Amino acid sequence: MAEAGKIAVSHFRRPLAALNKAEGGGFDPVTEADRAVEAHIRERIEERYPDHGVTGEEFGAKTGASAWSWILDPIDGTRSFLVGLPAWGCLLGLLRDGEPILGFMHQPVVGETFSGDGECAWIDRGGGRRPIRVRAKAGVADAILGATHPSMFKGAALLRFEALAARVRMMRYGGDCYNYCLLAHGLMDLVVEDDMKPYDILPLVPIVRGAGGLVTDLEGATPRGGDMVIAAANQALHREALKAMRG
Amino acid sequence: MAEAGKIAVSHFRRPLAALNKAEGGGFDPVTEADRAVEAHIRERIEERYPDHGVTGEEFGAKTGASAWSWILDPIDGTRSFLVGLPAWGCLLGLLRDGEPILGFMHQPVVGETFSGDGECAWIDRGGGRRPIRVRAKAGVADAILGATHPSMFKGAALLRFEALAARVRMMRYGGDCYNYCLLAHGLMDLVVEDDMKPYDILPLVPIVRGAGGLVTDLEGATPRGGDMVIAAANQALHREALKAMRG
Repeated sequence: MAEAGKIAVSHFRRPLAALNKAEGGGFDPVTEADRAVEAHIRERIEERYPDHGVTGEEFGAKTGASAWSWILDPIDGTRSFLVGLPAWGCLLGLLRDGEPILGFMHQPVVGETFSGDGECAWIDRGGGRRPIRVRAKAGVADAILGATHPSMFKGAALLRFEALAARVRMMRYGGDCYNYCLLAHGLMDLVVEDDMKPYDILPLVPIVRGAGGLVTDLEGATPRGGDMVIAAANQALHREALKAMRG
Repeated sequence: MAEAGKIAVSHFRRPLAALNKAEGGGFDPVTEADRAVEAHIRERIEERYPDHGVTGEEFGAKTGASAWSWILDPIDGTRSFLVGLPAWGCLLGLLRDGEPILGFMHQPVVGETFSGDGECAWIDRGGGRRPIRVRAKAGVADAILGATHPSMFKGAALLRFEALAARVRMMRYGGDCYNYCLLAHGLMDLVVEDDMKPYDILPLVPIVRGAGGLVTDLEGATPRGGDMVIAAANQALHREALKAMRG
């Protein structure tokens, strides 16, 4: 991850020619950094684990012969990256039969890595990893809620999100993958998002769970992208937030 | 600023007892860090420039005997600070007869300082300062717009903001003082905010102007807080954005 992070930093805050991935509409900034970081991580995985599958944002899926596969989002938080704010991260997850087992989020400008294995979670700010833990909080009324941007919610999802946002103590936009890591670190209580891809969320699952939190879709299952995602610092909060969202 | 930054970092990502400054309502997080940083900067100013005035977020205004006065926001971006995201900054400005002459934004976790004197602007990431410059952009349709949080806009201001936001290429929430510095750095094109205090905006004015940008209220004057603020990377964009906001 450190090497991949250096590649990302080499592109950070440079005038970038953002390609338009979504043909004909919208503004989905893809940077050279995205492609360079993903190519680097894929190369390292293929060298070391040639029979593992790999799925990434930029270069699609490679099916492997084994039960193990990797999933990565080279730059999660392209808006932050584009405007020069160090609120993005490089995401990498390891799955066994599709279940997330290990997760990493690396932020090379700040110089920190969050990781988790579903049972423990850690932060490493350069001096070795130390365990992190979610905050034990009473309820939604005291909670700090994070979401990347209001435009990710449409229709029923927007109503659900607004129903919850109206009841929390504070909400903050921005943050992308950082929100899940800061929830694991005990600094946020809820993250609700929509329109996620599997590589946006699966690498973060073992970090949130490892720190004692929950991260699910609206049915309480492991999120797979597509549907809304809710991460909560504890079980009671998760239940209460889901109830508020269902109205 | 470096000493003040160290004080801020010593409080960052620790479980903080946020006091509620706005008695009886809302959620205006004030941290111990805010108070400690402001006390430190005030002490240094008073030692060195005993006849200068000083105005800060936490400890109010001290009138000075000279034409010079300082204005500071010890932690601009308290939401970011509270959730552990390094998107906040320590702001310090020097005014002569109330006009902003020098400005500094220091981010101690990332380890960088933006500064400006109204004619030039710089970034210093630890290796000495180097000049920064706004982006030359054609118009609103290509612009990246930043604002801290939608809840800062009420009534007519919300309509104005939405009229502009609907026309830009991309918008991003979050960022606080960073947005103005990233505009100066050529990475954003427009920042529109409301409900600002003088200490939130005056230290940033010499940075934006020094990099070649504009930062004004809706009448085109130096912003004083209270009214909406618009920062733009160039004059044509400023004019076009104001027109879009007046609808």
